[in-house]
Amino acid sequence: MRLGVDVGGTTVKVGFIDNYEIVDRLVVETKKETLFDDVFVAVKEYATKKNYKIDGIGVGLPGHVVGTVIDRLPNVGISNLDVKPIANKYFPGVFVACTNDANAAALGELLADDDKKASAYMITLGTGVGGGLVIDGKVRDGSHSNCGEIGHMFVDYVHNYKCSCGLNGCLETVASATGIVRVANQYQHEFKTTLEGEITSAKAVIDAAKAGDPLGLFVLDVVADSLGRSISIIELAVDVDTFYIGGGVSNAGDILINRIADYYKRYAHYAVKDINIKRAKLGNDAGMLGAAYLW
Amino acid sequence: MRLGVDVGGTTVKVGFIDNYEIVDRLVVETKKETLFDDVFVAVKEYATKKNYKIDGIGVGLPGHVVGTVIDRLPNVGISNLDVKPIANKYFPGVFVACTNDANAAALGELLADDDKKASAYMITLGTGVGGGLVIDGKVRDGSHSNCGEIGHMFVDYVHNYKCSCGLNGCLETVASATGIVRVANQYQHEFKTTLEGEITSAKAVIDAAKAGDPLGLFVLDVVADSLGRSISIIELAVDVDTFYIGGGVSNAGDILINRIADYYKRYAHYAVKDINIKRAKLGNDAGMLGAAYLW
Repeated sequence: MRLGVDVGGTTVKVGFIDNYEIVDRLVVETKKETLFDDVFVAVKEYATKKNYKIDGIGVGLPGHVVGTVIDRLPNVGISNLDVKPIANKYFPGVFVACTNDANAAALGELLADDDKKASAYMITLGTGVGGGLVIDGKVRDGSHSNCGEIGHMFVDYVHNYKCSCGLNGCLETVASATGIVRVANQYQHEFKTTLEGEITSAKAVIDAAKAGDPLGLFVLDVVADSLGRSISIIELAVDVDTFYIGGGVSNAGDILINRIADYYKRYAHYAVKDINIKRAKLGNDAGMLGAAYLW
Repeated sequence: MRLGVDVGGTTVKVGFIDNYEIVDRLVVETKKETLFDDVFVAVKEYATKKNYKIDGIGVGLPGHVVGTVIDRLPNVGISNLDVKPIANKYFPGVFVACTNDANAAALGELLADDDKKASAYMITLGTGVGGGLVIDGKVRDGSHSNCGEIGHMFVDYVHNYKCSCGLNGCLETVASATGIVRVANQYQHEFKTTLEGEITSAKAVIDAAKAGDPLGLFVLDVVADSLGRSISIIELAVDVDTFYIGGGVSNAGDILINRIADYYKRYAHYAVKDINIKRAKLGNDAGMLGAAYLW
């Protein structure tokens, strides 16, 4: 049985996976000081009780990881830590692989779809914008273990907002939850809108758009435009079959996904117009499933 | 011995390759009607005479190719043709692989460098702008066999010139030989320049820049800006070690390559600032060498 581990800021989700199905699961609340010991102690105890044999361990991590060594997980507070020896302390000799959580999610979404050897890009629209690339069924970490950091692609020359990374016009300055709030506040007074006072929640903007609010719809249009443009560029650079759109902002659903696809068609080179742009469907399970198939 | 074949508009270059070295070569002038028969007849005759044993045949083609089937080679006038049965008519049972010429060149440049399993992007600045991607030593053709068509990345929102593909602001509207002529003519009257009358040659602009001409230098700066920006975006999407800059325009040399690297540093995300941007060094040999290592 394969173990897929998805490390988050407050909990760690563990999936026991067989033949691409999560057959059992465990959620471990952790302290950063003892995170991986906590997880593997709990997994070992549970696996022993259930008589699960663990053949390999894959871990998706919210930050920068090189091989099995964590460089930095900003939201967890861990840096410079090799996961492999901790895992092998409890599961001696078992194969251990790690990757960024967006990469793991990209593979998970692909595995849940038909063609397990296909190529896909996952775009995660959360507080920031992340991404993960799978080529021929294999996660690409990249030469700097930074593959998929597309939130910092220059794409919005219209607003050219300053990004937290120091650059301007990055995709995530408009297409993230933070970006949605920023754009909504900038254009609030140009529309007759139900969104009153200072706007602080991307969800409120998305809900307003779903209810037909002109400001909400305008903001989603800006988001979709920037994503359609980004996908048109990424597609020329790597030429994959499918883009999955996930993360909290993707809960906007068809109202957003269809707009992204429309902008993509407008901006795409004629030879690559025919791609799939889909809403990610696994949600929180994608990371576990993908992590379990890193090898 | 491996055979690397580089198909061009008027001649076909054939390399006999052993241990990453082109040990012998053949140039075949061809008519489009009989191109591959001409090539393989000549190769067979030459190989027999020299007692070369051919273990595999790789072909780089100037256009769109899917597997070993040519979709369309616009400058050669061939479409819908499977190369494999023609090659196997003369070399029965021998492995045959094909790819786009830019992909073959990308792999060739990488093989001529140190790390044969590295990842690299080749950018070819010719009449248009092409590209090829190698991941972990393996050419990526892509899901539409269009990987690397980065000449049509939207990147120049400043001029936003119309491209031959129907879109606007494509990289090749400024960074190709055609683009250089276009930009030079647009800004001609804003500089004290030795380039008089209608400018029709990219080489003249490049030569002027090398001699310190203010218009020539300005044009190369626009070209470098667009390439630095493009590389900063491609790098986030795929995260490779090295970008090779080839094609006729790259003959501008350091005056161009250094400027591209400067713009790259300005536009790059902090986590990926440390990459190699190099002038391609193999010239016309890159395609042969890379084609011979497609498998």
